[in-house]
Amino acid sequence: MEVERIILGIDPGTNLMGYGVLKVVGQRAEAVALGVIDLHKMGDGYLKLGHIYERVSGIIQSYLPDEMAIEAPFFGKNVQSMLKLGRAQGVAIAAAIQHDVPIHEYAPMKIKMALTGTGGASKEQVAGMLQRILKLDAEQMKQHFDATDALAAAYCHFMQSSRPQSQVSYRSWKDYVNKNKDKVKGD
Amino acid sequence: MEVERIILGIDPGTNLMGYGVLKVVGQRAEAVALGVIDLHKMGDGYLKLGHIYERVSGIIQSYLPDEMAIEAPFFGKNVQSMLKLGRAQGVAIAAAIQHDVPIHEYAPMKIKMALTGTGGASKEQVAGMLQRILKLDAEQMKQHFDATDALAAAYCHFMQSSRPQSQVSYRSWKDYVNKNKDKVKGD
Repeated sequence: MEVERIILGIDPGTNLMGYGVLKVVGQRAEAVALGVIDLHKMGDGYLKLGHIYERVSGIIQSYLPDEMAIEAPFFGKNVQSMLKLGRAQGVAIAAAIQHDVPIHEYAPMKIKMALTGTGGASKEQVAGMLQRILKLDAEQMKQHFDATDALAAAYCHFMQSSRPQSQVSYRSWKDYVNKNKDKVKGD
Repeated sequence: MEVERIILGIDPGTNLMGYGVLKVVGQRAEAVALGVIDLHKMGDGYLKLGHIYERVSGIIQSYLPDEMAIEAPFFGKNVQSMLKLGRAQGVAIAAAIQHDVPIHEYAPMKIKMALTGTGGASKEQVAGMLQRILKLDAEQMKQHFDATDALAAAYCHFMQSSRPQSQVSYRSWKDYVNKNKDKVKGD
């Protein structure tokens, strides 16, 4: 029997946070959920962060992912927006850490490259490629691009981690810490 | 009998995270703990974030603060450092949210102003003022400035919240959400 693996993809934004859940059996992948957490109407920073934390925790509890993949841009328009993005990412990361889910991070260009073969692909091209590979139905394709971007992050991680020359993999956050003891220092 | 209130101050950094715990009874305040979480030797971003999350959670579980005050600069050198700072803040904020501790945020200049009367005060001046007000002992004064900065954030919140014209106060995260229903939107 082949091992089933669940990968949660997250595209953290400060107004919309996309998520996509990928079920992987051997070399076959299937989309089991995708959607967005809408944060537009939440004026206050902490309400937003609390909502992200609770929703990401809820998604983790519902789908019990083995791993989480985040689309993480490292450069942005200005310091203010990067601080806000960092906070949103931090809260989503904390939800994963609390549930002992190891995290993998991919730059947007790398995700596009993995899906379409070009780092300059549009969101439409990424969504179209996912539709073909994962046979997304019309209902799934109606989702916002933040949802398909999140699913693309999960798919990129699936491709990355199923290669033979892949990096060391981790079963859990505790496993990760155990395999990286040299990086851990008590205070 | 006067009500006792515990305020946790946090100065989130990516290499050192300071914390200070203030016990307030009426108009009297006392430092019950201060220290730093040393992150220098943690090369990897997620190990750092995991460590911040676990340590802040541990401090919250030990001292059961009623509120948390964060020193939060809104501007920084560059987008990269602000993203990292935002993640560190986000993880500390998530620990507070998870333990239902409401969060208050103060700009560094406001904290200095509250303590010393001038927004341009040095870290030494802030620490010296805390030493006089809270009668910190020699052992406490040996702590890194990130610890006294964190305690200063807690003290700034104490001063802010004990004023009659103070903003609406919140007993807990749930209370905060209940009093801000207009800001909350379901998705």
